[in-house]
Amino acid sequence: MRLAMVGAGNVATHLSKALINAGYPVAQVWSRNIDNAVNLALEIGANSIANIEEISSDVEMIILAIADDAIAEIAQKLPINSDRIILHTCGSMPLDVLNMHPKFGVIYPIQTFSKNTELDFGQIPLCIEAHNNETLNVLYSIAKNLSNNVAKVSSENRMRIHIAAVFACNFTNYFYSLAHELLLNAQLEFDIIKPLIKETALKVMLSNPEEVQTGPAKRNDQSTIDKHLELLKNQPSIKDLYALISQNIVKKYSKS
Amino acid sequence: MRLAMVGAGNVATHLSKALINAGYPVAQVWSRNIDNAVNLALEIGANSIANIEEISSDVEMIILAIADDAIAEIAQKLPINSDRIILHTCGSMPLDVLNMHPKFGVIYPIQTFSKNTELDFGQIPLCIEAHNNETLNVLYSIAKNLSNNVAKVSSENRMRIHIAAVFACNFTNYFYSLAHELLLNAQLEFDIIKPLIKETALKVMLSNPEEVQTGPAKRNDQSTIDKHLELLKNQPSIKDLYALISQNIVKKYSKS
Repeated sequence: MRLAMVGAGNVATHLSKALINAGYPVAQVWSRNIDNAVNLALEIGANSIANIEEISSDVEMIILAIADDAIAEIAQKLPINSDRIILHTCGSMPLDVLNMHPKFGVIYPIQTFSKNTELDFGQIPLCIEAHNNETLNVLYSIAKNLSNNVAKVSSENRMRIHIAAVFACNFTNYFYSLAHELLLNAQLEFDIIKPLIKETALKVMLSNPEEVQTGPAKRNDQSTIDKHLELLKNQPSIKDLYALISQNIVKKYSKS
Repeated sequence: MRLAMVGAGNVATHLSKALINAGYPVAQVWSRNIDNAVNLALEIGANSIANIEEISSDVEMIILAIADDAIAEIAQKLPINSDRIILHTCGSMPLDVLNMHPKFGVIYPIQTFSKNTELDFGQIPLCIEAHNNETLNVLYSIAKNLSNNVAKVSSENRMRIHIAAVFACNFTNYFYSLAHELLLNAQLEFDIIKPLIKETALKVMLSNPEEVQTGPAKRNDQSTIDKHLELLKNQPSIKDLYALISQNIVKKYSKS
């Protein structure tokens, strides 16, 4: 099966490499940013194309690994081809955004991708969805060759997973960067909390997060919370976040 | 050096075991909750005592591993003994809360402890502080036997580290539990985002968190943010958090 990759960002890069490793050649790469397309194509041994219309007629699957709000527009530009499957990779775009094509589906990897970070793709949960069972079976067989962890997930549940992922990953990483900022402001090294970050994540591999919550808000230790808010008084946006989240945690654990 | 442990919670448990492994016998355990004291004493081969006044006169160091707001009160109850070092283990209590005693200090482990989670104590950063250099040297030599990662940290910087830890650990774990809740509500398994949680934490072992931020808010993808807020409309406290943090992330990355 010959593939074309539309997009050359973090997801496109990791997914292209995983596909090639699994024996699915990515023949062509297109990106709005031609330099990115050229770079990814070079990296994976594909051809970059400057116009999306140049996607070869023998490409059997086109994967749109692009920003959510670009999918509908780009999908519209692809020629209708009754033998070809069009996929997107987004958490929060419904399957039907691709329904101008005869065959379409979704492969959504539940992972955070950065270009320079190596990943074991085989461990990444892949959510698949398709317009009919035949296409779903094609996606299932590809996905199973990419990962041990493949699940059929509806568009609505995919979006729920995406929201959960925003909390568990994007917001979490933002908090790492607030911690980083707080430590740097005090001439302290970020290194000093790395074991804590690691342990916090590893603990929930084995325990429910509710059961391993710790900290001043969990203990409803208002005097510590107040001291922290006082020290944060010159950083109002961090202080407001601290207050709001502490309040939520206090409420959650004082109920039980 | 004979020690007494005051407290029998998560920190007391892990620290007692680490001390014993490093060759510092914990002779006595006291806790406000006598059952907890008995259980910890049994687990580590110490004696539990029902009254804090029973701390043996040959105990050379008493460690207060108790809630922040109990430290001043308990420290007051300990007999004054010019040969004995009194320690606490809190992030946000100043050293001076113990200054009614002749010798005093702090060992603050930057870690999240749950009783049933095994930890490699040797990797835990320990912040130490003491009223004079002689006591500091004693603490340093004990701390170096417990961990490879020991730093002298002032009371104020210790509190800054604690605030950073609240974001990087307590709030992060709270977000894991929100993710858990969102997934369970949709009959989805928490397992499905575990690889993401792990990768998010591991990524910042090697990269600055600012550089590996991903997600809709980082991309200022308002249409996805709006869809997520719409799906969260019946969970107003989660929705408000989502909106506030997304706003902060958008602001941070649109500046740069």
